[in-house]
Amino acid sequence: MNTIQNDRLLKVRSAMQELRLDALIVRTEDPHCSEYPAEHWKFREYLSGFNGSAGVLVITHQHIGLWVDSRYYIQAEKQTRDVSLEVFKDGMPGVPSYIDWLTYTLPSDSVCGIDGFTVSYSEYKNIYSKLKEFGIKVDYKLNIINELYVPRTDLPLDEIIEMDYSLGQLTRQEKVEKVRAEMLKLNASHYLLSTLDDIAWLMNLRGTDVEYNPVFYSHVIITPEEEHLYIDPHKLTSVISKRLDEEGIKVSLYDHFEKNVANIPAGSRVVFDPNRMNARVVNALQDGVIKVEAPNIVEQLKAIKTDNEIYNIKSAHIKDGVAMVNFLHWLQNAYLTEELTELSVAAKLLEFRQQQHGFVSESFGAISAFGPNSAMCHYEPTIETNARIEDGFLLLDTGGQYADGTTDITRTVAMGHIADKQACIDYTLVLKGHIALARAIFPEGTRGAQLDTLARMAMWRHQIDYGHGTGHGVGFYLNVHEGPQRIGKRDNNSEIKAGYVTTDEPGIYREGKWGVRIENIMVCEKRGETEFGTFLNFYPITMCPIDKRPIVVDMLTTEEKDWLNDYHKRVWETISPLVSEEVKAWLKSATDAI
Amino acid sequence: MNTIQNDRLLKVRSAMQELRLDALIVRTEDPHCSEYPAEHWKFREYLSGFNGSAGVLVITHQHIGLWVDSRYYIQAEKQTRDVSLEVFKDGMPGVPSYIDWLTYTLPSDSVCGIDGFTVSYSEYKNIYSKLKEFGIKVDYKLNIINELYVPRTDLPLDEIIEMDYSLGQLTRQEKVEKVRAEMLKLNASHYLLSTLDDIAWLMNLRGTDVEYNPVFYSHVIITPEEEHLYIDPHKLTSVISKRLDEEGIKVSLYDHFEKNVANIPAGSRVVFDPNRMNARVVNALQDGVIKVEAPNIVEQLKAIKTDNEIYNIKSAHIKDGVAMVNFLHWLQNAYLTEELTELSVAAKLLEFRQQQHGFVSESFGAISAFGPNSAMCHYEPTIETNARIEDGFLLLDTGGQYADGTTDITRTVAMGHIADKQACIDYTLVLKGHIALARAIFPEGTRGAQLDTLARMAMWRHQIDYGHGTGHGVGFYLNVHEGPQRIGKRDNNSEIKAGYVTTDEPGIYREGKWGVRIENIMVCEKRGETEFGTFLNFYPITMCPIDKRPIVVDMLTTEEKDWLNDYHKRVWETISPLVSEEVKAWLKSATDAI
Repeated sequence: MNTIQNDRLLKVRSAMQELRLDALIVRTEDPHCSEYPAEHWKFREYLSGFNGSAGVLVITHQHIGLWVDSRYYIQAEKQTRDVSLEVFKDGMPGVPSYIDWLTYTLPSDSVCGIDGFTVSYSEYKNIYSKLKEFGIKVDYKLNIINELYVPRTDLPLDEIIEMDYSLGQLTRQEKVEKVRAEMLKLNASHYLLSTLDDIAWLMNLRGTDVEYNPVFYSHVIITPEEEHLYIDPHKLTSVISKRLDEEGIKVSLYDHFEKNVANIPAGSRVVFDPNRMNARVVNALQDGVIKVEAPNIVEQLKAIKTDNEIYNIKSAHIKDGVAMVNFLHWLQNAYLTEELTELSVAAKLLEFRQQQHGFVSESFGAISAFGPNSAMCHYEPTIETNARIEDGFLLLDTGGQYADGTTDITRTVAMGHIADKQACIDYTLVLKGHIALARAIFPEGTRGAQLDTLARMAMWRHQIDYGHGTGHGVGFYLNVHEGPQRIGKRDNNSEIKAGYVTTDEPGIYREGKWGVRIENIMVCEKRGETEFGTFLNFYPITMCPIDKRPIVVDMLTTEEKDWLNDYHKRVWETISPLVSEEVKAWLKSATDAI
Repeated sequence: MNTIQNDRLLKVRSAMQELRLDALIVRTEDPHCSEYPAEHWKFREYLSGFNGSAGVLVITHQHIGLWVDSRYYIQAEKQTRDVSLEVFKDGMPGVPSYIDWLTYTLPSDSVCGIDGFTVSYSEYKNIYSKLKEFGIKVDYKLNIINELYVPRTDLPLDEIIEMDYSLGQLTRQEKVEKVRAEMLKLNASHYLLSTLDDIAWLMNLRGTDVEYNPVFYSHVIITPEEEHLYIDPHKLTSVISKRLDEEGIKVSLYDHFEKNVANIPAGSRVVFDPNRMNARVVNALQDGVIKVEAPNIVEQLKAIKTDNEIYNIKSAHIKDGVAMVNFLHWLQNAYLTEELTELSVAAKLLEFRQQQHGFVSESFGAISAFGPNSAMCHYEPTIETNARIEDGFLLLDTGGQYADGTTDITRTVAMGHIADKQACIDYTLVLKGHIALARAIFPEGTRGAQLDTLARMAMWRHQIDYGHGTGHGVGFYLNVHEGPQRIGKRDNNSEIKAGYVTTDEPGIYREGKWGVRIENIMVCEKRGETEFGTFLNFYPITMCPIDKRPIVVDMLTTEEKDWLNDYHKRVWETISPLVSEEVKAWLKSATDAI
């Protein structure tokens, strides 16, 4: 096979030979542990042709393996069909992790390379200690990407903007003081921060360096006296530069971050999140510097939205709801008169969103999936796959970035007649799961993994399950995925707290047949206090009807019907004054009680 | 204050002075990481007067602290009232862990002592690394208990018995081969085992060294070729000695274990569970020995009961059910004619159990708690606290060791008239939680922490919660608490597997008023396989009616009523042929459908 990728992989092997490397690990992350890196960092995709958002490529002189999770089993096979590599399906029984595989494959005294910028410190420690047990060394100071990744896109130089202070968020100095209060608890002299959405939040700035994510490439160091922002100065307008200067925030070159970390004097207590800071930077710390590993301070602070932030986020959701309702009304009529495809309906939905005040962009690539395509839970339509919409389920998972908030909504819409009764049962089980999580009341201290079960228990009784998480945090005009919370089977040890904004999105996927997912965003609120402690609940802020037509009504309990009717009543009351009479009539029937 | 304990603590401080120790940590465990150690190891109790099953005493030259968890907040305060120490309530906001407290309290260059035999290797590593960060050294090779713990009870020399092979369990050699198969996967040359119930299971032997737990003090080393049992040879009958010898199991002196571990040659790969092996033994391993940390192999194997084991366990539960039913029938009548107390009813229940074939002993100290006492969830009645039973809830959490199984059952019984409606609501919420967990269907790979939510969600809606776990593993004529499974809020990362035997015991406790808990033991079974994977469910094997009288029937769903009626039907069919006509009549009404 003589593909571009195979040529590139051959060049990598030559370079490995020169550097006396027996293996090379190529991960997906940029130096900021980003979920979605800029083009500049997409070396794994460049080498393998696989463009999923997660995956690890491992190259030895004999083998090449690509490790992907269940979201990408099919896509990775397809995209690497002509590349001389083996796809390893992480999580399948008997499939070794890439680290274990290396311990089987490499003889002792081998050297395994990895670009320390592209791996978190905690994962690096994991790699290092497991390989060390087998006598394998790790070289993390590689710098071969630049030579091999040709042509390489430059890092983006786009200008950044300042958030509108009329939204009433905390000022930079208020936020920095909150960080310092946390540093004090840890007795820390320095706080290192590289995660882009955390920096954007802290600095009340937004950029466009990563598609859909309004962030900009930068690093931050905070001490009890100083704040340093490491950024390419071309990205700052003179107004912003002046303001940062007035506020005492020191701007340094982006590339000086590692060097300045290396200059932190011995005896300092440096706090950072080992999962959210790259290994190269942490390893640059001098001997004698005390590493204080702690959950990312800014991520924790940012997750608890202030009352003003929640007010704005709700406003953005009302606008997004108007766009969705206008779209769904259009969709129902257009289905009868036009030929529709996955791409055409996604484009139309974007048009409706663009009509809304403060709309900036989509918050991620729209998932518009019809019929069998909807069974692939991370499917994005392309010109090649673009399915024509006929009778069946259309799954739309989309969202918008607004200047006052970020949205993320999934609706599964019954187009025409749904012939298979099982499809309606699946739809109803997903709805039951969605409602069970949305209705939950739970004590403070409850973690996402504990709540995840609520979304699954109804379908589990039917021996049905889904492979993805149930909920993720959502930013305030920031990334559509943010932490620390996660509602899912895997326990990330993070509690759901009052002020958190989280999705609720169970699903069922029948390969080759259909997929169902229903997603709202919810704010976590304080419910009350009793002798048993403080209790919390969720409040849904997504404002869009849930298609009632596929529901098997007998399968719902009275409480579930009440929840749906209450939710729809609120959607009606909120959205109906903001749409045309014609749309209003449609909305009335879409939100009528069942 | 001039108590025995204060005198003993003074002597400890003198010894610390001689040894140049700035602090001493006294933990609760024996060298086998046992939950319940023999008298010989109860040094923490000897020094502090506090006899709870968990707690850490820390002595410095200025302060003495006793760290206890929420089960023991009240008991620890009471029992140490006259001892010059401070009780630290672990888990309360603002209360430092004992390790953090040491880092605040001790200057750097201090030395902190701990008997390495009484701390697991993982907790030791935790202590070591946290204290090291503050320049504090740890001396784990202390051997001062013998001098200071005077008089010290000897280690028990009781004889051990062999399990009855007619029960159809695996033979020792079959079990050892299963261990070796796991060792092979880890490429291990040695397996170290010190946990007493695991050794008892592996060796098909039982002892009486620890109250209620049919175990015997011993250690084991397995290699691909050899099996070594370290035990005081006086404990072995000549028949057992001969049989072990015939089977090639080498018996060595109990005290030679550490020395033999120290003799394992460099280059060996030694597997052990860092949570289930004491630090002193692990630290005895030579440099160059590779430590392979893994979940305890025997614990994992032992948890999956064979079909024969399950058959026997069910038999034991039928006998235990007969005893419980006879007792509950007696209780109902005796309440009208006799004066009853917590201790008198517990004694009567023991009598009924003793009538059953193969009964050996209780499986733990009976919890017989009336009214306000039942709100203390680990209450055990004493002559001082022994309450008279009047109208209200009587909570009985008891169990038996039988030659063919171990039982653990809680029933909350309405005595006379329950005046407070809230008590009945609480009872019903506990029952709803119990049923939700018992009815669960869930995919393979589900962990206990995910299922725990099912038992709590109904009471959470009423802003009620409980502070203990919901389920624990139960041995086969072994410890009433065994791992690896745990159904509880805390995630111990252990999946619930087919063949596991686990309790289901939610509760509600209103301080000063009442407590409710309902507990059955359940076997996990395979439910079926679908395109979504393999699914499991629970099957309750405890055979005793659940008091229907306090149920607020309106609060139960149809599914919940069906579960209760089905369960009671099975109790009736199983137990009614085994009791007298008079008891049968009572059982009929106790198990009638609601």
